[in-house]
Amino acid sequence: MRFYVILFDGFETLDAMGPVEVFGAFAKAAEGHVIQCCSEKGGTVEGAQGVRIQTLPLTVIEDGGVLLIPGGMGTRREVTNAPFLSRLADVCERAQYVLAVCTGSALLAKAGVLKEKRATSNKMAFAWASAQDADVVWVRRARWVRDGKYYTSSGVSAGIDMALGFISDIAGESMADAIARRIEYLWNRDPNTDPFCE
Amino acid sequence: MRFYVILFDGFETLDAMGPVEVFGAFAKAAEGHVIQCCSEKGGTVEGAQGVRIQTLPLTVIEDGGVLLIPGGMGTRREVTNAPFLSRLADVCERAQYVLAVCTGSALLAKAGVLKEKRATSNKMAFAWASAQDADVVWVRRARWVRDGKYYTSSGVSAGIDMALGFISDIAGESMADAIARRIEYLWNRDPNTDPFCE
Repeated sequence: MRFYVILFDGFETLDAMGPVEVFGAFAKAAEGHVIQCCSEKGGTVEGAQGVRIQTLPLTVIEDGGVLLIPGGMGTRREVTNAPFLSRLADVCERAQYVLAVCTGSALLAKAGVLKEKRATSNKMAFAWASAQDADVVWVRRARWVRDGKYYTSSGVSAGIDMALGFISDIAGESMADAIARRIEYLWNRDPNTDPFCE
Repeated sequence: MRFYVILFDGFETLDAMGPVEVFGAFAKAAEGHVIQCCSEKGGTVEGAQGVRIQTLPLTVIEDGGVLLIPGGMGTRREVTNAPFLSRLADVCERAQYVLAVCTGSALLAKAGVLKEKRATSNKMAFAWASAQDADVVWVRRARWVRDGKYYTSSGVSAGIDMALGFISDIAGESMADAIARRIEYLWNRDPNTDPFCE
């Protein structure tokens, strides 16, 4: 299984790196998995908190992988980047699973891959995110939402819970629990409990 | 206030990036803060989960900053890297605050800066970490421990709780609560409650 983290300037650090930690623990427990950071053109990407990460271009993404798309202020720019959204739609169609954290779902919505699907987003940016495509069935109260191969989560830390929920779905709850214990994380395992909705 | 994240090959991703997210939210709320990733010699550092990060050398660290030292399997190598430990001790002495996550405290212990101080570490690597310096007052049951300017936490995710506890100490609990809400994180605010101790 290959995990691809799709980054862009101004991505939110923990949106990406929380799930990366979970995927990494899964990769360690079940060998043969690879995690790669990608971006539209490859090269260095700078996150919203100033961390500079080396990436490969989206063209390296093989079919059947797991994609992770973080949110962050950079999404405000990327929703107007038509070539990126077109490539994003393409790699999503060819992926086995697609996970978006926070306003990462706004990118998926604008790329047109969430039509008629249930999805959620960051509570503080919900109006903006949901405006990217009115054909998405936006769910306001949710820690995370799964619809088929698409997973979307609430803001930032919710991505860790969603990543554990994803591992639970594909490898069993005991594997997700073992990973949570390894990273000393108190997993919020109910996708419908959303303490940040109000 | 300047935040310096001290990285090395094989650092644990979330140990570093959880607190970076908290520091970043604080920097946004209280402008004028800077976050920089550093390493012994600068250049690209590869974390234990395969993320490649650009760093500056430790020589850029100015006096009076806040240092963050993650753990990870790379610490097993770095505890034998005498030049690095010597520089680490030096920047710690000149820092205003030093925060270590997981086995990051093993590096501080081996560098000799925790003598007679209370400190904790990852539960799964506790025996190894605490063996780095018997003159440290090792505290097994703790989400995080503060002793003067030194903060040390349990494994991985505990670093997020510690970082919020640190912000609470320097800027008030309401600031820490606002950051936790912004990143939709359920803060485990009691440093003495440690569900992963058993």
